[in-house]
Amino acid sequence: MLGFVALAAIAALGLAAVNFFAVKKMGTGTPLMEEIAGAIKEGADAFIKHEYGVIAKIAAVIAVLLGVVVTWQTGVAFILGALMSGSAGWIGMKIATIANVRVSNKARETGSLGETLKVAYRGGSVMGLSVGGFALLGLVIVYFVFGLLLGELDQAKLAITENWMGITFIPFTMTVSGYALGCSIIAMFDRVGGGIFTKAADMGADLVGKTEAHIPEDDPRNPATIADNVGDNVGDVAGLGADLLESYVGAIISSIILASYMFFTNLDSIGGAISYELISKLMIYPLVFAGIGVLSCMVGIVFLLARKAGDDPHKELNRSTQVSALLTIIGTGVFTWFFLKDQNTAAMGFKIGALSPWIAAVVGNLSGIFIGQLAERYTSYDFKSTRKVAEASREGTALNITQGMAVGMKSVFFPILVMAVATIAANAVAGIYGVAMAAIGMLSYVVATVSVDTYGPIADNAGGISEMSKLEPGVRQITDKLDAVGNTTAAIGKGFAIGSAALAALSLFSSFLYAQATPADTSGFILNINFIDTLTMAGGLAGATLPFLFSGILIEAVANAARKMVQEVRRQFQEIPGILTGEVRPDYTTCIRISSAGALKEMKFPAILSVTAPLISGFIFGANFVAGMLIGTTLTSVVLALYTANAGGSWDNAKKYIEQGYYGGKGSEAHSASVVGDTVGDPLKDTVGPSLDILIKIMAVVSLIAVPIFQDNNLISWIQSLL
Amino acid sequence: MLGFVALAAIAALGLAAVNFFAVKKMGTGTPLMEEIAGAIKEGADAFIKHEYGVIAKIAAVIAVLLGVVVTWQTGVAFILGALMSGSAGWIGMKIATIANVRVSNKARETGSLGETLKVAYRGGSVMGLSVGGFALLGLVIVYFVFGLLLGELDQAKLAITENWMGITFIPFTMTVSGYALGCSIIAMFDRVGGGIFTKAADMGADLVGKTEAHIPEDDPRNPATIADNVGDNVGDVAGLGADLLESYVGAIISSIILASYMFFTNLDSIGGAISYELISKLMIYPLVFAGIGVLSCMVGIVFLLARKAGDDPHKELNRSTQVSALLTIIGTGVFTWFFLKDQNTAAMGFKIGALSPWIAAVVGNLSGIFIGQLAERYTSYDFKSTRKVAEASREGTALNITQGMAVGMKSVFFPILVMAVATIAANAVAGIYGVAMAAIGMLSYVVATVSVDTYGPIADNAGGISEMSKLEPGVRQITDKLDAVGNTTAAIGKGFAIGSAALAALSLFSSFLYAQATPADTSGFILNINFIDTLTMAGGLAGATLPFLFSGILIEAVANAARKMVQEVRRQFQEIPGILTGEVRPDYTTCIRISSAGALKEMKFPAILSVTAPLISGFIFGANFVAGMLIGTTLTSVVLALYTANAGGSWDNAKKYIEQGYYGGKGSEAHSASVVGDTVGDPLKDTVGPSLDILIKIMAVVSLIAVPIFQDNNLISWIQSLL
Repeated sequence: MLGFVALAAIAALGLAAVNFFAVKKMGTGTPLMEEIAGAIKEGADAFIKHEYGVIAKIAAVIAVLLGVVVTWQTGVAFILGALMSGSAGWIGMKIATIANVRVSNKARETGSLGETLKVAYRGGSVMGLSVGGFALLGLVIVYFVFGLLLGELDQAKLAITENWMGITFIPFTMTVSGYALGCSIIAMFDRVGGGIFTKAADMGADLVGKTEAHIPEDDPRNPATIADNVGDNVGDVAGLGADLLESYVGAIISSIILASYMFFTNLDSIGGAISYELISKLMIYPLVFAGIGVLSCMVGIVFLLARKAGDDPHKELNRSTQVSALLTIIGTGVFTWFFLKDQNTAAMGFKIGALSPWIAAVVGNLSGIFIGQLAERYTSYDFKSTRKVAEASREGTALNITQGMAVGMKSVFFPILVMAVATIAANAVAGIYGVAMAAIGMLSYVVATVSVDTYGPIADNAGGISEMSKLEPGVRQITDKLDAVGNTTAAIGKGFAIGSAALAALSLFSSFLYAQATPADTSGFILNINFIDTLTMAGGLAGATLPFLFSGILIEAVANAARKMVQEVRRQFQEIPGILTGEVRPDYTTCIRISSAGALKEMKFPAILSVTAPLISGFIFGANFVAGMLIGTTLTSVVLALYTANAGGSWDNAKKYIEQGYYGGKGSEAHSASVVGDTVGDPLKDTVGPSLDILIKIMAVVSLIAVPIFQDNNLISWIQSLL
Repeated sequence: MLGFVALAAIAALGLAAVNFFAVKKMGTGTPLMEEIAGAIKEGADAFIKHEYGVIAKIAAVIAVLLGVVVTWQTGVAFILGALMSGSAGWIGMKIATIANVRVSNKARETGSLGETLKVAYRGGSVMGLSVGGFALLGLVIVYFVFGLLLGELDQAKLAITENWMGITFIPFTMTVSGYALGCSIIAMFDRVGGGIFTKAADMGADLVGKTEAHIPEDDPRNPATIADNVGDNVGDVAGLGADLLESYVGAIISSIILASYMFFTNLDSIGGAISYELISKLMIYPLVFAGIGVLSCMVGIVFLLARKAGDDPHKELNRSTQVSALLTIIGTGVFTWFFLKDQNTAAMGFKIGALSPWIAAVVGNLSGIFIGQLAERYTSYDFKSTRKVAEASREGTALNITQGMAVGMKSVFFPILVMAVATIAANAVAGIYGVAMAAIGMLSYVVATVSVDTYGPIADNAGGISEMSKLEPGVRQITDKLDAVGNTTAAIGKGFAIGSAALAALSLFSSFLYAQATPADTSGFILNINFIDTLTMAGGLAGATLPFLFSGILIEAVANAARKMVQEVRRQFQEIPGILTGEVRPDYTTCIRISSAGALKEMKFPAILSVTAPLISGFIFGANFVAGMLIGTTLTSVVLALYTANAGGSWDNAKKYIEQGYYGGKGSEAHSASVVGDTVGDPLKDTVGPSLDILIKIMAVVSLIAVPIFQDNNLISWIQSLL
């Protein structure tokens, strides 16, 4: 079993390497193209290097803490997770900055949409395969080294153990949690840092360029334009990849942990309902499931790359993803049938029938598709909502903003209803384990999703390079078409990201409750998070505010950096008159430096807040408060993430709709209003929303690791002991 | 006891009448002033009449339903509540439209700030006293007629009873819930309808007037200006009054209901911990508490009106409120001591010591003050946050909006932390009853708060009339000073409204759980809302989206009406060139009609949604789902209400700061940007935020009434019975 997963991981990384070098050896076009691409690459490299430097220090501190307070295995697994996630982000950024100019050049040389698409997708697939490959490889190592070699999966060790500090937990759950936390930390920094970088550059470029100087996007006269393109690579590629890797790992480990807690059902007081053999099976099951998904996606990727590509990029990409998804569903279905066919067990919230975890995964998958489609209904200009935002722009900026807010707020209801129903359904077929499997179902073909998601910014960058290198308009047309498709798929991808994050958070949360339940007192063992308990309710209130606080800090961080960018761009336009006439090359480097410095400075506080909030609360108010807090944070995060994603998407597309000539088209008052709306939406949809997905998982994992410690050691219980 | 409360209510209404006629007999100034004031009055009268017509039909349906499905007493109490709340709103609107021109005239005649202040405050006090008087009067009637005359408070009837449909409940809890629901329905319609009216007019007037035609606020050339002034009366006066009346009643009845549920503690299985006598005491206690508050506020009002008023309106108003608050605290403290001094009981989440409910009330009061001050820190331009919004306006509209959002989002953390700590503290001293008392503590001097809150729009209207009647600038200066103070106190008042709504919702929610707990099976009687239960969790998710859905609908409603207004104003400016030169009087009536029609059309859906959401969910998914939903809705509502209030306030004051000459002052680019921000914030802070306070209470009360019905009759339990 594990060998198969290892093979799948290595195969994915192998294909990634093949595609990487295939892209790299392609032609890079004119000297000007090379120069511009070089500047983007340099900026991205420099930023990621600085960023990883900052992360390394913080990660080292956390690793040592985990090693001392929990187990050394947890600390090591944490570092492994950070390395895996970090590598995926690094490679993604690398390939994106290599592929962009080659996509542009392919369009220039061949003029073929299909051929150009293939280059961009091949580049994207490197990231997709790296995400799947590294995530699984790390899990295989954790499973093999700590689980098998060091025996944490032995029947005897799959029980509550006490460490040297007297803290009790199941060792393997801590080790895999450490691994997940490693991935989460990287994801948080990559997302937040990259998000601030890219949106500061984007907003700065747009605010002065489009709104004041009235020059088009990616115009080489705009000093912030290279920074903007760098941002696409560090934010939309590295950030997104690390984010989805983290969701993927989070979903897998939460089902492993839940399975390991099934040993509780063997306590004498309850009467051995689930055998050790079944528990072992359910702990490897999610890994194999994911392995099948990775292999299926490899087929889907090769399927696109090997065929003669047609001229409808939307269809091509969809077909590739559909092949991946379908093969995943069939493959995992067959596997599940043979693996669990004799099972029919139910105890303590767990329920395992022949196909039940697979059905739960399919439910998750379907709900993800449904949520994605709903996102499209609200954000695409083919539908009423976004057209209304465009229409409102005629009455000015304020009504564009107001209408976009309204669309975003209204858009949260149905997707979350789908999520709620999916949770009920998954739970009905396979208990709590089913909820975790639903998250895995959504993410099982993550390789395909990330490949498409990365393809988008690569195409976007290629467009920028074509513009700045003054290539023929035909080239830009090709890259624009590719980019437009990327935008739609990105919106759908966000639905998956949010949905899976919510489900993963719910199952991590269930694990938290298992960890909180005192196993010594098994007579009354019951999972309960009672919201009528005042501490829990207070925790819920406090937790509900955190996503808002976190978002406010992020938005302000982007705004601060963007304002500096605006001032710099204005300064250059004023002091160097030759820039706007195209005679003098603007100073790109200073703008890159502003985004970079802003991102590095501002990313620390929100990232650290997400880790420390549950710890501080736990040591003051105890485990019940933290339980309430996790619920509160999850609820508002999910709602806020959908709101920001859909409002932002709607503003963006309303602008694009007007640019197609409606309501006066480009240059009209309505267009100006819609540009402001788009700018307001940018940090919401690309910085805040995605970071919220990570926030809930990071808080859940941190709480899960720390609950054995603060459970009995907190201020409130200390005060009560004094009274 | 009850006699004392009745006296307090009647005294308050008496003083209201005295002040009403005192204001009415004052002079109304020049013919032009009379004409303009007449137009405002007419518009407000017509709207309220239409609005009440719509409400009457819906209320009749609800009353019949309640009468048939629950008890006829509940239906009658519902109508009584609607009448009381409706009367308060009506009188408030009346006095506001009478006082506005008289304030303006007093300023014109005397030139004295102090004298003018008194007129405005006297007008405001009519509304404050009506709110307190009508709320209490209705409660006294309910208590006397249904409780005493019809015996619902007899020991024998203070127990679970079955009605003709086989639904079980405690009769008196249903009767008072019906009363509260009556108040809530009116509040919801007044708030939503008035909010849409006022903000549509306000946005429409500003968008074309300030931003496009560059004419000042309240300029008679603006066709929407009379509609804007009408809006202040129907939204900020009638809407706000009904809103706070509803909070006040909600807080009082939730403590009465909780007290009545104490009879559970006398069940044999638990062992008679609390005597019937104590329960009776705790059921009248909140009424007496409120009565003392009303009398104290009367002293505070007379204190201001009888003295020679100084020239610092802020100080005058604060002193009056402080007198009211202090007398309330002292009076209730003394009363509590004599009333409960021998008590020392604790059972089942209840805890009653000598002064404990009073301490909980003081905790609530202090936390309300604290929350109000925090609101000021975020929204006043004397502090950093709002100045930063103003500063960001220099870089354009997008950054003004973004920064305001960031301030709003960051502003939710500390107030809610205060709320959370207050909940823990109130619960620690007096159990669940203490949480309800904390809400009462916040609202105990509501008469004083509403007086000041109503004074604001009256002064605002007076300013408008002065401007439109072309009075000397000195008059406008006086009314502006009065208005400015009103804005600050309004921000603080919102903190109280949100805080008390949250606490009242929490205690209503506890009542819901008592009602849900099956009293037949008293052996395992435990209050539990277990969030690990999938249905509860799914309910939490669904509930968390409702405030966003509701807000989105409201914002869109305002935007729709505002867009029509913008089109009309633009049309008038284009078609009748004489308007802008001041030669032709614009067509005010059409604008009033647009706001009115928009409000009447758009208010129905959100109001009905708030009532039906818990019902539909209950009959499909059952009581556990609804319990989760109430939690989810409460959490996101509180957060969203604070966000909207503070973001809106900050945008508003950032604009005012710039208007004082900073960053280029009026007419600068920064000022234009800040006007857009203010316009975006308007519907958020004045329509959405306050309506959310009502949403959570209405949903809690509806659930409380309906839970005995859908508890066993729902789709899920029906499906389970089939399996």
